[in-house]
Amino acid sequence: MRAAIFRGGDIVVDTLPEPVPARGQVLVKTLACGICGSDLHAAKHAHRMVEVSRRIPGRVPMDLARDVVFGHEFCCEVLDWGPGTQRRFRNGTRVCSMPLMMEADGPKGMGYSNTYVGGYAEQMLLSAPLLLEVPNGLPTEHAALTEPLAVGVHAVEKAALEGDEAPLVIGCGPVGLAVIAALRLKGVQPIVAADFSPKRRELAAKMGAGVVIDPAKERPYGKLDAARRAVLFECVGVPGILQQMFEGAPRDARVVVVGVCMEADTIEPMFGIVKELSVQFVLGYTPDEFAQSLRLLADGAVDAEALITGKVGLDGVKAAFAALGNPERHTKVLVEPWR
Amino acid sequence: MRAAIFRGGDIVVDTLPEPVPARGQVLVKTLACGICGSDLHAAKHAHRMVEVSRRIPGRVPMDLARDVVFGHEFCCEVLDWGPGTQRRFRNGTRVCSMPLMMEADGPKGMGYSNTYVGGYAEQMLLSAPLLLEVPNGLPTEHAALTEPLAVGVHAVEKAALEGDEAPLVIGCGPVGLAVIAALRLKGVQPIVAADFSPKRRELAAKMGAGVVIDPAKERPYGKLDAARRAVLFECVGVPGILQQMFEGAPRDARVVVVGVCMEADTIEPMFGIVKELSVQFVLGYTPDEFAQSLRLLADGAVDAEALITGKVGLDGVKAAFAALGNPERHTKVLVEPWR
Repeated sequence: MRAAIFRGGDIVVDTLPEPVPARGQVLVKTLACGICGSDLHAAKHAHRMVEVSRRIPGRVPMDLARDVVFGHEFCCEVLDWGPGTQRRFRNGTRVCSMPLMMEADGPKGMGYSNTYVGGYAEQMLLSAPLLLEVPNGLPTEHAALTEPLAVGVHAVEKAALEGDEAPLVIGCGPVGLAVIAALRLKGVQPIVAADFSPKRRELAAKMGAGVVIDPAKERPYGKLDAARRAVLFECVGVPGILQQMFEGAPRDARVVVVGVCMEADTIEPMFGIVKELSVQFVLGYTPDEFAQSLRLLADGAVDAEALITGKVGLDGVKAAFAALGNPERHTKVLVEPWR
Repeated sequence: MRAAIFRGGDIVVDTLPEPVPARGQVLVKTLACGICGSDLHAAKHAHRMVEVSRRIPGRVPMDLARDVVFGHEFCCEVLDWGPGTQRRFRNGTRVCSMPLMMEADGPKGMGYSNTYVGGYAEQMLLSAPLLLEVPNGLPTEHAALTEPLAVGVHAVEKAALEGDEAPLVIGCGPVGLAVIAALRLKGVQPIVAADFSPKRRELAAKMGAGVVIDPAKERPYGKLDAARRAVLFECVGVPGILQQMFEGAPRDARVVVVGVCMEADTIEPMFGIVKELSVQFVLGYTPDEFAQSLRLLADGAVDAEALITGKVGLDGVKAAFAALGNPERHTKVLVEPWR
């Protein structure tokens, strides 16, 4: 099968052996797989990512001397079942899954793995018990947004906003937009959001932000209701943002870190101390939140279409990685390996 | 009057004009004033402290070209009342107070101020409404521990431990010891504490830590009950500790930052992210917590005597600043300006 492979620091299209489903596994055809900001970061700072993973107990770092196929936001079609599976769905059924492979000693990640190819390949293996059927009528490309939406749903769950708290979303890329959508679905009002890009501000409004700010022109923190406790969502994930937020945050604010900053970052704790800030780091989602996100998309509760700004085949992945640097042009690009 | 003055980067003893109580103020004789780690830091990194204060809205930085008298952990004796005061106590009454002066536009800090001398002076001005009478029978030197104990009481209140959470105190200087005492008074069991100093570990046990660890010999995090959520108190306050805790913390842990790190600090957010850590920065105390701390000392609920390792007159302040660098020798040194 063909795949867009991360090999020797570059993205190359080549053929790989067709995967064979082992016990508990399902062979699927990849219909669509979103490109995530973490994929861009992994491609650019692979060695750094490996070095950090090595120091985190329980993480298996990628071996960069071997092939890796990225892609963890996928919608697929069932092709074949491995031994010991219940064959819950007919072949041809469209499915989503958390990007995890269940193994005897616990789940293993998919998308930054030498063992399991991610969604930038014509076929992949999934874990049979994790499959969720895509509801009839939900377009494949929208179903592929389940994973990034789940990130927002989880962040908002972890934030556990109380009635009198006022949210501010810093950064309106795919992560920030998912957080805004999840806040709106929780009925939180008003949602304040900030991004330097006009296109992303437009999408923020479409996702449900009532107040949308260009931080080049005004301080986002000034738009918060001073009588309410602020809950600030960090959805940028690059060094320096946390300190900016420490400086800008009102007293007693809560910061929820959803952006995935993979580099070292410098803060001045005094700003956190004098304001008695709190910081909650979040990652991923629970199986329930993932399933809920698929249902929300199926119910049309999120304007999925607005988020998809491009579709490419495997040959277009490398160029898409470059193009995603421009926030005016792209939000979510889907890889369709069958193209 | 005589005072130990921070002047030109040095501690010098000199005379200052006797303060005159204005409206709402009380003139007091300083009986005892503890030396705080923040005083040591301010003396060593004064310019840095000023530079940070300047960037925090509402903070009035010290003018280092002018005299500053440190000291914010004091017990005093009422000498005279300014106009507009209710003269709630007879002259000669021993009092404690939060180190704040109430002004028309809000409270002003005391101890790092060019306007109000702190407790390293024979006399000082306090805000009449803030005075708390020292209960009969509570030794003056114990009453002077009200402020540092309140820091621990506040940190534990902010931490809001739930029944199944397991505390670990990193650093057993005065801040860590106050946190341990406050945890014990809340009935939290067991309290795990870690410090490199044998003397401080001994004090940690005395204050109520059931498990006391030398981090040179074993990982403090390994002593936590894995079935319970960890609440880690950062009571060191120097760069690098937060990252050490990020690396050592179990998944889902809460970090409560009580140590006051006045320098920039570098963290790797990935460790916080993959473990979904939360960080709560805390500072100071409420008036209720301050009053409660004085009552706890009066009730003999804390072994105050064990914490006091030295007493000096104004002439001994400079040497005490140096001596406090040795954790085997000193925990809390009290300045008695009348000596």
